[in-house]
Amino acid sequence: MHSVNSSSVSFSALGRRAEPPTIARLMSMALEQEKLLSLAVGFTDNRTLPVIGVEAAVEALARQSGEPEYLQYGTNQGRPGLRQLLTERLLLAEPKLKANAVAESLMITNGSQQALYLAIQVLCDPGDIVLVDRPSYFVFLEMLTGLGVQARSIPVNAAGRIDGEALRQSLVEMETNGETKRLKAVYFVSYFSNPSARSLAESEKNTVAQVLTERGLIIPVLEDAAYRDLYFRQPQAARSVLGLPAWETFPKFYLSTLTKSFATGLKIGYGFCSDKAWLKKMLHVKGHHDFGTANFNQAIFEHVLAGGGFGAQLARIRPTYEAKMRWLHGVLEAEGLSALGWRWAEPTGGLYLWLEAPLALDTSMDSAFCHACIREGVLYVPGDLCFGDVAPKNFVRLSFGVLSESDLVEAGRRFVTVAKRFG
Amino acid sequence: MHSVNSSSVSFSALGRRAEPPTIARLMSMALEQEKLLSLAVGFTDNRTLPVIGVEAAVEALARQSGEPEYLQYGTNQGRPGLRQLLTERLLLAEPKLKANAVAESLMITNGSQQALYLAIQVLCDPGDIVLVDRPSYFVFLEMLTGLGVQARSIPVNAAGRIDGEALRQSLVEMETNGETKRLKAVYFVSYFSNPSARSLAESEKNTVAQVLTERGLIIPVLEDAAYRDLYFRQPQAARSVLGLPAWETFPKFYLSTLTKSFATGLKIGYGFCSDKAWLKKMLHVKGHHDFGTANFNQAIFEHVLAGGGFGAQLARIRPTYEAKMRWLHGVLEAEGLSALGWRWAEPTGGLYLWLEAPLALDTSMDSAFCHACIREGVLYVPGDLCFGDVAPKNFVRLSFGVLSESDLVEAGRRFVTVAKRFG
Repeated sequence: MHSVNSSSVSFSALGRRAEPPTIARLMSMALEQEKLLSLAVGFTDNRTLPVIGVEAAVEALARQSGEPEYLQYGTNQGRPGLRQLLTERLLLAEPKLKANAVAESLMITNGSQQALYLAIQVLCDPGDIVLVDRPSYFVFLEMLTGLGVQARSIPVNAAGRIDGEALRQSLVEMETNGETKRLKAVYFVSYFSNPSARSLAESEKNTVAQVLTERGLIIPVLEDAAYRDLYFRQPQAARSVLGLPAWETFPKFYLSTLTKSFATGLKIGYGFCSDKAWLKKMLHVKGHHDFGTANFNQAIFEHVLAGGGFGAQLARIRPTYEAKMRWLHGVLEAEGLSALGWRWAEPTGGLYLWLEAPLALDTSMDSAFCHACIREGVLYVPGDLCFGDVAPKNFVRLSFGVLSESDLVEAGRRFVTVAKRFG
Repeated sequence: MHSVNSSSVSFSALGRRAEPPTIARLMSMALEQEKLLSLAVGFTDNRTLPVIGVEAAVEALARQSGEPEYLQYGTNQGRPGLRQLLTERLLLAEPKLKANAVAESLMITNGSQQALYLAIQVLCDPGDIVLVDRPSYFVFLEMLTGLGVQARSIPVNAAGRIDGEALRQSLVEMETNGETKRLKAVYFVSYFSNPSARSLAESEKNTVAQVLTERGLIIPVLEDAAYRDLYFRQPQAARSVLGLPAWETFPKFYLSTLTKSFATGLKIGYGFCSDKAWLKKMLHVKGHHDFGTANFNQAIFEHVLAGGGFGAQLARIRPTYEAKMRWLHGVLEAEGLSALGWRWAEPTGGLYLWLEAPLALDTSMDSAFCHACIREGVLYVPGDLCFGDVAPKNFVRLSFGVLSESDLVEAGRRFVTVAKRFG
């Protein structure tokens, strides 16, 4: 009865801009290849997922006295108890926050992705500009494109560190071009970044704040700390923008997720906003999106956090991810990738290896190298997807989160086999 | 360290439009009154929430062999197994769909609210117009306002039934004013509506399709069937737009929720879209919102639907809601509200009573009547919130979902006490 081939729909500007994620094309290229090992997908380790912890939380909730409010609607902003626990957790990492930090400034979202979407929705009109780290999180970059917003990279030096002088030049150029009035926010993934595995030093964050301040650009900052808990041995010492004096006068949104570090299937993120007006706007729009993230999932996390289960799960997965990183890193070394001129740093946290191929080697999605990898049975994320503007074509993101150790070794071998062919 | 009083943020057009829900003001008025009984909040019955069913589903998932993929990321569109089960369920209600309906045309969302948001986001620019039922779902109306979209009521006659001739006049006027090019969609809550408890007859739906067709307006239709499963004794016989020949050439989005009828805390909705291009656009934008609804919640519903637990829960709650409706309806009658000139129909499903006060009585949010009710300790939704345009001020929505039977009786008494004072 329904006509699936209708094409009579007239779309909004946002609808017309909406495109499939670039990565979808990679996935469909990969579909043709059986027995593919994916170093592309950013999933987490299946064997350490907290099956018992989640089951125990649900059982405990079911045995609570009183009405089963955990199965009822919650509030738009999120469970007060969960917000309180997350605030306390945040205070451990950012002790200077103590005086002013309150659970009222924190909102619960459908993963940290929704927090990013809400922040940009209320800040940016089509044609506006957001400064992003280089490289940056490609799902965020595609979201910006979907909202008609331009990304502009924060320049980095040859070592990949933020280059304050180049940023100053870039902002002066934007002033000259009349673009600074369109500059609405700055965004970076600051701990064990996706894709680079790199963490920003305090000095780098301070540089950005100082140069923006110098140019009179006190704009909102989004610090994406999705991987902050996923260090291998010890936390990254750098304070977030919430604790750095250089950022004091800036409106700040610090966001993270409970799902990457616990169970991705539960999809709970959160954002802590220093600016009440900004927080309220995001909450009003969230009211239109869904009027609150699933209360059940929040109740599970509240139970898990209150009972110490979150920390226990982190203690369990940190060595797992370090071991997985070492298997992948090790096989790339052992098979001779360095000798071919590839460079990468051994991460101290996160889920990714970020490889720089020799400059002459094109590893982008439509490259011969990428197609050869798929034929060889290994998939990666072409690094050129991870740049807000001019993109080098010789970077590769490898994820070691989901594959088993033996599959990581096999996938790494296949990757180096292809690299040798192009070497 | 953070400055909570900063007000330096420059917002987007959407951000500037974002306002707190009108109902929030009602709630804050109510905060001053202790021992308030709320007939306003649209929550569901706490005592019949499926505590055991959810716990059993989680236990069964934990005992599955293989990797615990239910705790891992899912897909953007939603679990294939759940989409298949929902498609089969939809086919029971809409047998004519069979030939073409496929799980590929269905998407899982964060409650049906997200389905509505995505649909409007990809269809409407600010200034566009959506035809809505009269009265209509006030959260949808506020969402339209947030997106800068105008609602225009589908005219009804004195009996509250869709008036085809008046709709024709209205569309002719829009043509004259050059507004029809901005008319982008039509929306109605067609089964046991929020707020009116009314269901649309097939003839009413057909009238809308015929008048739109006559005016050359083959625009997308959103049929919100959130309460379709919540009949008391027997399903509403009217087919949806998916099965009505008059709507055959229209792009159709039929949406509903699993949470109202099972557990609101799990927040899973879905939409079935007859137009592939429209579905794809919504999916691309969902990729930016959250790249997929919580896989865990979907897995629970997949288990519950596959094992018959969803039907069992419906069989359990239908008599509960009918009994609750009768308690509230009964006390209003017994206390003499009809004798005061108030009119309402006894619902055959849903969660609401929709009362029409005598024309001279103002029951809107800032009315003396509303304030008197709060002082008396009873809260309701002022009906004027539920109209897309010119709003009568003598309607009231009462929800019987959440209060216990004794509280419903007490709340009803308080309500009639005030009505008598204004009588």
